[in-house]
Amino acid sequence: MPQEVLAQAASEMLDWHGSGMSVMEMSHRGKEFISIYEQAQADLRELLAVPEHFKILFMQGGGLAENAIVPLNLSRGGPVDFIVTGSWSKKSLQEARKYCTANVAASNEAGGHTSLPDPSSWELSKHAGYLHLCSNETIHGIEWHELPDLKAMGHDSPLVIDFSSHVASRPLDWTRVGLAFAGAQKNIGPAGLTLVVIREDLLDRALPICPSALNYKTVADNQSMYNTPPTYAIYVAGLVCQWLKRQGGIPAMEARNKAKAALLYAAIDHSELYLNRVAHNCRSRMNVPFFLRDESLNEAFLAGAQQHGLLQLKGHKSVGGMRASIYNAMPIEGVQALVDYMAEFQKSKA
Amino acid sequence: MPQEVLAQAASEMLDWHGSGMSVMEMSHRGKEFISIYEQAQADLRELLAVPEHFKILFMQGGGLAENAIVPLNLSRGGPVDFIVTGSWSKKSLQEARKYCTANVAASNEAGGHTSLPDPSSWELSKHAGYLHLCSNETIHGIEWHELPDLKAMGHDSPLVIDFSSHVASRPLDWTRVGLAFAGAQKNIGPAGLTLVVIREDLLDRALPICPSALNYKTVADNQSMYNTPPTYAIYVAGLVCQWLKRQGGIPAMEARNKAKAALLYAAIDHSELYLNRVAHNCRSRMNVPFFLRDESLNEAFLAGAQQHGLLQLKGHKSVGGMRASIYNAMPIEGVQALVDYMAEFQKSKA
Repeated sequence: MPQEVLAQAASEMLDWHGSGMSVMEMSHRGKEFISIYEQAQADLRELLAVPEHFKILFMQGGGLAENAIVPLNLSRGGPVDFIVTGSWSKKSLQEARKYCTANVAASNEAGGHTSLPDPSSWELSKHAGYLHLCSNETIHGIEWHELPDLKAMGHDSPLVIDFSSHVASRPLDWTRVGLAFAGAQKNIGPAGLTLVVIREDLLDRALPICPSALNYKTVADNQSMYNTPPTYAIYVAGLVCQWLKRQGGIPAMEARNKAKAALLYAAIDHSELYLNRVAHNCRSRMNVPFFLRDESLNEAFLAGAQQHGLLQLKGHKSVGGMRASIYNAMPIEGVQALVDYMAEFQKSKA
Repeated sequence: MPQEVLAQAASEMLDWHGSGMSVMEMSHRGKEFISIYEQAQADLRELLAVPEHFKILFMQGGGLAENAIVPLNLSRGGPVDFIVTGSWSKKSLQEARKYCTANVAASNEAGGHTSLPDPSSWELSKHAGYLHLCSNETIHGIEWHELPDLKAMGHDSPLVIDFSSHVASRPLDWTRVGLAFAGAQKNIGPAGLTLVVIREDLLDRALPICPSALNYKTVADNQSMYNTPPTYAIYVAGLVCQWLKRQGGIPAMEARNKAKAALLYAAIDHSELYLNRVAHNCRSRMNVPFFLRDESLNEAFLAGAQQHGLLQLKGHKSVGGMRASIYNAMPIEGVQALVDYMAEFQKSKA
């Protein structure tokens, strides 16, 4: 979280803009909160370049709740298609199967989740409710640098992307997307807010069993206030949006994120100690897993990292090794410090 | 929201307890946040006197989401029973009918939602999945001062209560309750956090279509962290719990709330201008609707109130008139100011 944002939130905690109220005390129907909501909506739309025929919804429950909410709203009972590229898309697939026929159109599991399946090999259903993919897999460190163009592939199903872990880190081609969802906690705000961007023609397809509070049309028709919205999280997300605009917006963030990722991957690739197995065309700019070729050094590496103030580098338990998460709020200096430590550690073991 | 709580949140915004991190930056799996979570759980359990065989769950989506989540988890397809006493219980009934056979065991609608249906008149189903009631109806100003004892009435179905709007305002007899849910935003914390207290034997009854993130057993088995929890809202709820303990806990809050309500109802009842139609045995201590006998004075009353800094007094559009919401954080001085203004206004119109 950017320090400027936290400082502003702290300074406004007891009295927001002379209203005499904390944002936490505001009614979500009052004019003060409505102005915060509208500004956050407008800033998100501008930053993410969301076209007018998409709605921006503020929901709750994060990406894992959306794994059910999407098929409840869009599947029409199926078939729907999935591209499985790692743990998150696999989890989404399993949840969708509660509500519809869900096919694996392609998977990279056989290759250990290290590359993207070639679109020419995808087995897409006719008239699928949607095609789901996770556009950045945090655990395996795989990112879609270009989204598939389903129309050009001769398919009319809308593309659904889980962009939780790289939202606002790069521009997005909305002409290829029907729905995008993201837990806000990586790049946009505090936990407890889910961002859903949905093409308007997809709003009214929900199954009868869809809970009202999770029905995209109900949410859209009520300006995300059918149920009480997470007001403070929306406020902080709005502050982050303003910070993103001050940084130069998403193209500037992308340039910074490219530079950060390039620095770290170069350090890995040019070393004889470290290893990243992901194909170059889909290496994540947000989550960089890497391994020590001599795994017996893992503990020493982590202990030394901690001494250097480099925290949370242990890889996910399902894959082991190391993982550096370098979201928007991580400055390049933080990546440089990691790269310097990696070189120092390697030298000490040479 | 208590000012002390807001001040503490502001002072800890950039650095929580010397951790160098904001609570908003913490991983929900890190030891810092786990300690916040555990303290909030322990304080809630102590304050609300929740017995050990109940789980306390932190969820999202508020009471309106629980209207679907409860039948998805507990109905077994029905039958379930409802006591309809106002807008909120009616809304819950309608949502439940998506998932199960839901019967109206009793309703006070014919009497204009001004009294509680006599338990001797209730038409309860045999072996119902549960009996639902809303223990404080904010719009009609009706509160259950004593919960029904279903066992004594010869029924084995668990009692489900929506206690969103009076949670932590009074002690609760858990021997009569199977599940209680509450959006946190009235008395416990910021919007975006839902409190669910559930007897352990009810955890594992969900319908197969229940979304994983909304499955009580999944939530309980994962310490409310199956999906990313609303970390900051949990932190603030924890601060509110500590404030409640400093105030003397729930019995002390109840005494304050009794005094506040008595003051306001006396002013209404002893006046020839104001009117509250709710039976005395179920008048809400949290939400006090009242009417001006001469409704043509409504606008003048509201305008004068605003000049006195008395805000948000307009009644809900479905019932009209006025409504004073006097939740835990409202001091008796605030109620006294309202009562003084009401007397002054009446005098000016005499």
